Amino acid sequence: MSSEFGKILRISIFGQSHGKAIGVVMDGLPAGEAIDMNELNAFLDRRKPGKSPLSTARKESDTPVFLSGLEDGKTCGSPLCAVIENAGQRSKDYSELQDKPRPGHADFTAWAKWSGNADMRGGGHFSGRLTAPLCIAGGIARQILARRGIYIGAHLSSVGGARDMLFPLHPTKELFESVAAKPLPVLNDHAIETMETAILAAKESQDSVGGTIECAAIGLPAGLGGPMFEGIENRLAAALFGIPAIKGVEFGDGFSAAQMRGSQNNDAFFIEDGEICTKTNHAGGILGGITTGMPLVLRAAVKPTPSIGIPQKTIQLSCLEETELVIHGRHDPCIAHRAVPVVEAVTAAVLLDLMLEGNHGTF
Amino acid sequence: MSSEFGKILRISIFGQSHGKAIGVVMDGLPAGEAIDMNELNAFLDRRKPGKSPLSTARKESDTPVFLSGLEDGKTCGSPLCAVIENAGQRSKDYSELQDKPRPGHADFTAWAKWSGNADMRGGGHFSGRLTAPLCIAGGIARQILARRGIYIGAHLSSVGGARDMLFPLHPTKELFESVAAKPLPVLNDHAIETMETAILAAKESQDSVGGTIECAAIGLPAGLGGPMFEGIENRLAAALFGIPAIKGVEFGDGFSAAQMRGSQNNDAFFIEDGEICTKTNHAGGILGGITTGMPLVLRAAVKPTPSIGIPQKTIQLSCLEETELVIHGRHDPCIAHRAVPVVEAVTAAVLLDLMLEGNHGTF
Amino acid sequence: MSSEFGKILRISIFGQSHGKAIGVVMDGLPAGEAIDMNELNAFLDRRKPGKSPLSTARKESDTPVFLSGLEDGKTCGSPLCAVIENAGQRSKDYSELQDKPRPGHADFTAWAKWSGNADMRGGGHFSGRLTAPLCIAGGIARQILARRGIYIGAHLSSVGGARDMLFPLHPTKELFESVAAKPLPVLNDHAIETMETAILAAKESQDSVGGTIECAAIGLPAGLGGPMFEGIENRLAAALFGIPAIKGVEFGDGFSAAQMRGSQNNDAFFIEDGEICTKTNHAGGILGGITTGMPLVLRAAVKPTPSIGIPQKTIQLSCLEETELVIHGRHDPCIAHRAVPVVEAVTAAVLLDLMLEGNHGTF
Amino acid sequence: MSSEFGKILRISIFGQSHGKAIGVVMDGLPAGEAIDMNELNAFLDRRKPGKSPLSTARKESDTPVFLSGLEDGKTCGSPLCAVIENAGQRSKDYSELQDKPRPGHADFTAWAKWSGNADMRGGGHFSGRLTAPLCIAGGIARQILARRGIYIGAHLSSVGGARDMLFPLHPTKELFESVAAKPLPVLNDHAIETMETAILAAKESQDSVGGTIECAAIGLPAGLGGPMFEGIENRLAAALFGIPAIKGVEFGDGFSAAQMRGSQNNDAFFIEDGEICTKTNHAGGILGGITTGMPLVLRAAVKPTPSIGIPQKTIQLSCLEETELVIHGRHDPCIAHRAVPVVEAVTAAVLLDLMLEGNHGTF
Repeated sequence: MSSEFGKILRISIFGQSHGKAIGVVMDGLPAGEAIDMNELNAFLDRRKPGKSPLSTARKESDTPVFLSGLEDGKTCGSPLCAVIENAGQRSKDYSELQDKPRPGHADFTAWAKWSGNADMRGGGHFSGRLTAPLCIAGGIARQILARRGIYIGAHLSSVGGARDMLFPLHPTKELFESVAAKPLPVLNDHAIETMETAILAAKESQDSVGGTIECAAIGLPAGLGGPMFEGIENRLAAALFGIPAIKGVEFGDGFSAAQMRGSQNNDAFFIEDGEICTKTNHAGGILGGITTGMPLVLRAAVKPTPSIGIPQKTIQLSCLEETELVIHGRHDPCIAHRAVPVVEAVTAAVLLDLMLEGNHGTF
Repeated sequence: MSSEFGKILRISIFGQSHGKAIGVVMDGLPAGEAIDMNELNAFLDRRKPGKSPLSTARKESDTPVFLSGLEDGKTCGSPLCAVIENAGQRSKDYSELQDKPRPGHADFTAWAKWSGNADMRGGGHFSGRLTAPLCIAGGIARQILARRGIYIGAHLSSVGGARDMLFPLHPTKELFESVAAKPLPVLNDHAIETMETAILAAKESQDSVGGTIECAAIGLPAGLGGPMFEGIENRLAAALFGIPAIKGVEFGDGFSAAQMRGSQNNDAFFIEDGEICTKTNHAGGILGGITTGMPLVLRAAVKPTPSIGIPQKTIQLSCLEETELVIHGRHDPCIAHRAVPVVEAVTAAVLLDLMLEGNHGTF
Repeated sequence: MSSEFGKILRISIFGQSHGKAIGVVMDGLPAGEAIDMNELNAFLDRRKPGKSPLSTARKESDTPVFLSGLEDGKTCGSPLCAVIENAGQRSKDYSELQDKPRPGHADFTAWAKWSGNADMRGGGHFSGRLTAPLCIAGGIARQILARRGIYIGAHLSSVGGARDMLFPLHPTKELFESVAAKPLPVLNDHAIETMETAILAAKESQDSVGGTIECAAIGLPAGLGGPMFEGIENRLAAALFGIPAIKGVEFGDGFSAAQMRGSQNNDAFFIEDGEICTKTNHAGGILGGITTGMPLVLRAAVKPTPSIGIPQKTIQLSCLEETELVIHGRHDPCIAHRAVPVVEAVTAAVLLDLMLEGNHGTF
Repeated sequence: MSSEFGKILRISIFGQSHGKAIGVVMDGLPAGEAIDMNELNAFLDRRKPGKSPLSTARKESDTPVFLSGLEDGKTCGSPLCAVIENAGQRSKDYSELQDKPRPGHADFTAWAKWSGNADMRGGGHFSGRLTAPLCIAGGIARQILARRGIYIGAHLSSVGGARDMLFPLHPTKELFESVAAKPLPVLNDHAIETMETAILAAKESQDSVGGTIECAAIGLPAGLGGPMFEGIENRLAAALFGIPAIKGVEFGDGFSAAQMRGSQNNDAFFIEDGEICTKTNHAGGILGGITTGMPLVLRAAVKPTPSIGIPQKTIQLSCLEETELVIHGRHDPCIAHRAVPVVEAVTAAVLLDLMLEGNHGTF
């Protein structure tokens, strides 16, 4: 049991890259929530490959089929299952890899865990393709949250060495929408060119680059979450590290806060329109694992795509001898930009779960 | 329910800073494990304040009393409960704070969550003091893991701007022990002076500094953990963010990996003494959420202590008016060094849980 | 979140009776386990309706399609998803019921819970049809357990007033198979006629009957489970009450034990072939929530099918007025016999989960 | 991990019969709830032994000390820990038992699970004494529920062959109180004498008797719980089987329903004072795992106390030879009457957890 998360809203992801289908079960959705399929498909489109030279040339149709959980376009209280059929995989591209684990990939650890029985064609259950059903779940969660005035947006804060600016103190729904509509999801349009250059340079060298993603959520009430191990940070991090290639998660100023003094990092309280706010938001909207009501802000680090064309040293599992590996096939020189909606999706799913759980502070 | 973590080994922390006692229940410990009390107390001493001008002058006795779970010094299969009595709190130091939430603290969010009913004297359940029972749990877990050849060590990788070196590719048990024995837990002795200077400078200004902690675990088998949401990173991060003041967690090269190319970040496999190893360990010993058998490496960011003597802007909750706050009492100018054994403790507890769960890849 | 169970092996059921499909996700299956599809389909056939006048005339094809989790007929470590398409529902039969909750059904409580948004056509997610994916899960679990010498069998211990005998002290695999092959799954062939008579008499009167099911598992090691809340009984009961219409669960002598004296109910230990056994098995193979190694024995009570043709008093939800309801359509005069493999399935799934978790008593 | 239950309100029990102390942690209690200590102690008194010849002559002081979770007599949002010190155990009474497992006890299974490392003095963690901290948890839950108009009561429905009547359709708070105040908790005063006779006859023969307990909860809203595996029945049964000696649990008519026809067992809906009610309550207030709003009714079977004075056959674990065992010491000829408040306690704890979770049907 490993591909599930959530407490009141439980999300379970299944499928292998080259299996029959991939999908998601969402158990615990509130009933009576309309799903806008156009909006959902537009959200799913944001993570799709094949749209530009920045991504793999593989096409994925990714049109979800809903097997359960909906009636007349609205959630009906029973678990929702949506599946996406797999089609057009070229499994032969991967045959050599069965015996030669790709550096930076889960090939070796899957072999170690499942004693050689794992279906690792196309990355199997570890494939980035599995983020498509995650986006179905998150896309549905986003719609339900938006009806309560809670909006989630993210941008590519860096790619390789190229950097975007960071979110302003109070990002808005409109800002989130404008970022999502750009060819690369950034705040500062100038970053598009420097990032594209970085990605294409890596592609040119048969190499890849990583990046960082900043995500914010606005409209959350104060008092959500709890101390210690089931706080907002714990639950978000636990889910975000489920996105393939994520190697770091920080909230508010995160690692930068470690270099600040308390007088810089503490957010002073003040009153605005009768509400308690803070003048800065180094805390990222979370104190003691509980929301302050200020925007929730987090950043995630995406490692460079491990599948690269450059020859690499590896071993043959069958004979434990060292060998060289050249990975053929169509690969992403960067997945960080495609991971932007995935980070939003996971954040939305966790926040909806927390909202459904509610604030149990008093009864 | 928020102060618990674990799956097979379930750890539950209770207590408020100024309540009668604080403690921990460990449910799911294997039976027949001797607890070396001297070793445990030595481990607990590492997080204690009052030992130098780098920490608060408060003394904590922190001697655990075991109410259950042991017979003749060995675990007996039933839940272990250990408590530490509270004594010598000066609650009057905190009386003003009931109405004036300290910036950077959980005072405000606790008030929002529990509608003013929280016991926040001395930080209540959010106090750093609650890391003492966490260290009891982790100290016990360390002993059980050590018997299986699994060792965990950590060091202060930075304080404010002052930096230590990072762990070598293969840290050893002896290295962990030597770091733990130093006045500040660092690899490079030169860092002691620069870090002490940074801490004392902050103290001088009635201010505080944060820091980062690097933690490693050696001796883990390959194949532990799982894909997606219950992987090693997910479970460690979920628990580590339970340590007060932690705002970021990264594995292997983490956020730095986001700036690398795939060819730099991928760890090439090779064979050494018949074992599959990697020549580098950018992955921090984890691929696809599963251990590779290489050292597990993580870093955590500790924000600067929010309790500072400098006057700060805040509000009065009773009348929603803005005011100024001066925090009196004895506070830590830095807690990052004291958090080093706490990060080890949480890592040990999570790894023991994972080891007890075992590798369910095949049956 | 409500339609899932399990700890290491997590089983999630989805679907509505008249939706597009029903199905199951099994997360945590060990890899490398061959699934014998003929054996699985034979097991699924045991719960199918439409085979005799004892059940509804509805035909269900119930052929599972595997979307994930298998490669070359063997489990591959990633979550297994199997679906059964729905076809041939006559939703019009149920239109009147939307406003008139059927006595004894979940119609009213679903309306109360989901504020009228539930899809209750054909019973929706509460339909007995959802036991088909449960049987897929249990059928797979049975095969994996059987390879380890653990066998599970059940029989119809009573229907209405007609009774079968109870399992002998040591039921065998062969006994389980012979019971499963009979037109009604009973130990004593004479019970077939008396039970059929009871069912057909109820059918004649447009009424229904309930029954009890006795289930046993042999081959379990001693030491599985644990004290208090995660013992064998707790986990089996928690899952068994998930089968629609189950209203009671007892282990060993259960409610009868309450009428015994200790001297009658205690099972004396003795040695047989070097193994510790008991001469009787009033405990049903469980002491203190932990297996003794003797056969595990449980009984479940199945209430009479609530859908009956006799006119019943109910209310109209739309206007809160009292009314009469006549349920048309094809219904089961008894579901207890069809629930026999379902009880086996749930028992198998829970026991496989417990076996995968293993005995964590020592490390 | 085995001695915990609950989802929002998590209850963890620790301690061994002859260890230093036993206790409970309640994580997730709402803040601001006053605990009436007199009322709590009165509730705890109901399970105490030593009050009459019907129980063991052992005295237990059972006065809880609260280590955390309270401030000024009210819950404060952080985990509540209460402990009861052990005193006056005569461990020597149990020395022989270490090697000779008592029939009907967990001695053998604990030995099998923990490889001989369990502390089984006085029954260890399996002792009925551990129901004292359960009653602290339940006693607190009762007070919180009572403030919301939810009341829980139970009575001894049978002891050995002697029977009490069953609860009326609508039991009241006053009825619950009057039952609790009697020397034996029964509805029909005539049952007191027949039950006492049964218990004393067993005692006379150095034997023991079991019994059944009927428990009801009134004031619950409709719509609580959910379908399949997290319904009311699942969660109550999972917790109730955690009470030592419980071997069966049924809801509503339970096993009797299996002998009824649908027309008898279905509860007809009608309108009373604008509320939807049922004229009978064979369902025990639960349909499809969800509350109907009618009284919740359950029954639990308590096996006869396994500790009896009559010589019994057992084995010596050290040499695997058969032997005879005579259990000395002070034992209960019946524990069913003392288990009545324990069943109430567990029911209260589960219902408070469900109430805190709330009805997530819509958002």
